Amino acid sequence: MHAHTGHRPTTGLKGLLVAATALGILAVSAGSAPAADPPAAGGDALMGRARELFKPLPATLPVVRNNAVTREKIELGKMLFFDPRLSASGIFSCNSCHNLGLGGVDGLETSVGHGWQKGPRNAPTVLNAVLNVAQFWDGRAEDLKAQAKGPIQAGVEMNSTPDRVMAVLNSIPAYQAKFADAFPNEKNPVSFDNVAMAIEAFEATLTTPAAPFDQYLEGKADALTDTQKAGLELFIDKGCSGCHNGVNVGGHDYFPFGVVTKPGAEILPPGDKGRFAVTKTADDEYVFRAPTLRNVALTAPYFHSGKVWDLRQAVAVMGSSQLGATLSDQEIDKITAFLTALTGQQPRVDYPLMPASTPATPQPVFK
Amino acid sequence: MHAHTGHRPTTGLKGLLVAATALGILAVSAGSAPAADPPAAGGDALMGRARELFKPLPATLPVVRNNAVTREKIELGKMLFFDPRLSASGIFSCNSCHNLGLGGVDGLETSVGHGWQKGPRNAPTVLNAVLNVAQFWDGRAEDLKAQAKGPIQAGVEMNSTPDRVMAVLNSIPAYQAKFADAFPNEKNPVSFDNVAMAIEAFEATLTTPAAPFDQYLEGKADALTDTQKAGLELFIDKGCSGCHNGVNVGGHDYFPFGVVTKPGAEILPPGDKGRFAVTKTADDEYVFRAPTLRNVALTAPYFHSGKVWDLRQAVAVMGSSQLGATLSDQEIDKITAFLTALTGQQPRVDYPLMPASTPATPQPVFK
Repeated sequence: MHAHTGHRPTTGLKGLLVAATALGILAVSAGSAPAADPPAAGGDALMGRARELFKPLPATLPVVRNNAVTREKIELGKMLFFDPRLSASGIFSCNSCHNLGLGGVDGLETSVGHGWQKGPRNAPTVLNAVLNVAQFWDGRAEDLKAQAKGPIQAGVEMNSTPDRVMAVLNSIPAYQAKFADAFPNEKNPVSFDNVAMAIEAFEATLTTPAAPFDQYLEGKADALTDTQKAGLELFIDKGCSGCHNGVNVGGHDYFPFGVVTKPGAEILPPGDKGRFAVTKTADDEYVFRAPTLRNVALTAPYFHSGKVWDLRQAVAVMGSSQLGATLSDQEIDKITAFLTALTGQQPRVDYPLMPASTPATPQPVFK
Repeated sequence: MHAHTGHRPTTGLKGLLVAATALGILAVSAGSAPAADPPAAGGDALMGRARELFKPLPATLPVVRNNAVTREKIELGKMLFFDPRLSASGIFSCNSCHNLGLGGVDGLETSVGHGWQKGPRNAPTVLNAVLNVAQFWDGRAEDLKAQAKGPIQAGVEMNSTPDRVMAVLNSIPAYQAKFADAFPNEKNPVSFDNVAMAIEAFEATLTTPAAPFDQYLEGKADALTDTQKAGLELFIDKGCSGCHNGVNVGGHDYFPFGVVTKPGAEILPPGDKGRFAVTKTADDEYVFRAPTLRNVALTAPYFHSGKVWDLRQAVAVMGSSQLGATLSDQEIDKITAFLTALTGQQPRVDYPLMPASTPATPQPVFK
């Protein structure tokens, strides 16, 4: 299993503690200091405040709800994540839009898919997504196994069907064997559900521990620069942490885009009413899941619309729209500096060798 | 440097012997038996014949003409190979069409590029391409550094320009540093030429040694099955080895498609006259570089047109068009079995972490 090399333990599948809160999965590492501990020696008042609001990201792998993660599932899921044959055209893989070498995103305003169509929203990062309360900007998928089925079938993304995916996988004996290994007690291991389960298992490994901010939360006072500490203080005092908190510094609940003032239509397109499409509740108009801010320095452009390319500008927009605050350039600089301290160790992935197609494999379709 | 893990020495950059023949680069490993040696103990008459025609692929890295390969160049080249920001849209990387998890190809008839346009010819494998006499089906690029510049600029592929690529790379300080490391004695290390040099250096690592056939050539008589040996004998006796020989089992010279009988227009589209477009010589009409057959079992669909999806059918077409022979089903089975013995150790690549864009990075362009 090569999903990770070198940087962190992959034997941590055992012995994990999991606190499943009302807001979703919240994984707590078995080894490091829980957030409830008093600040360690060398801590300060700011560290104490931060530890009430945030939790360090565990170095161990999170446990996934209703999906026992095994090495075999991770290995299969990694192949599937990178395999463009899950798309009808044979061009797009999960990694196309959630590029593991680019912070788990594609760096596009909105992704481009089948037939050069543009998708409706910016692709969220897959990194640490397992720790979000739900998936997609509007939370319409309760977890990653539900999410994984969406883009495969979406006409503007991979444009495939469960039947086609099954035909592809069943045409490749080596894939059949991998599914049998990953789902050993199942009569029909090659199934669309299991495609999603394996992808979820792999994606659960894509966490980014040991960011400077994690080290700070764990008691290392000098893990943040003075500017970053000033930014953290502003992040708390101005109210950013009202939505962006917890282990994922966001990702755990839904909020209106424009709590105080709606941003302009160029940033908040009126046609996309967010979670309203899921709940059909008027209160959910223009409501979106607050994104995780982990690795946010890597994941431009920003917002569900992908319209803002500069993290400093994104901070300014959030200040005015969510907090009713016109942040000064210095404040923006400090908050942005703090946000860069949320960049963690990126997953190191050994690029998978995918089994070859056979003459029975359905050919790519471009129409 | 993580370009390879585990399977083979990467310290072999030193001490290589290189025999640059008139046909191009022909790398010979310093350690293993040169082809001129008598068959090893356990060899047979067939092995002796094979060793006159073919050479085992060295486990060591080949030396590249006019490009001293260093670890720094390989590391930079790997990033560039996987970076979709070399394309105008930010969607296509070298790996999109030369997927290292899929035998170095994309599994499409012809590649799809910018604006969902289809390219004119099937994407050849990047694996062992460094050992070809020249690049592209018509040999119009003399080496991989020349080849690499083509798809980046081709309107139907990545649709970028040298200026745009320079603007992207210069907007990313971490890339500037990588270029300075890789080209330490140059005043302007970030250049389009050096993009190509770095990609070539990485691609030179993408060889696939230790195929069963290589082991056989090195004296291990039981590395091939009896059926594969029968296929090898047919491959020689029927004349396949007339074009497909040497270290790359092809790739070193140009031949007409249809030496004896032109295949139908569905396989040999009349509009693509091959090398004629390069040399403007009537003799070069419908002439193409014989492709390497290494890893051919992984690289369907076949021929420059990509019209044949079944390796058995490709063997039959070659028999009739190139040799004037109607091969029996049994003969086709045997030759195909031999061809599967050309699948070598695939390169194991640690997926690169590419440096993040900045607000100065040119935004993707879709038109």
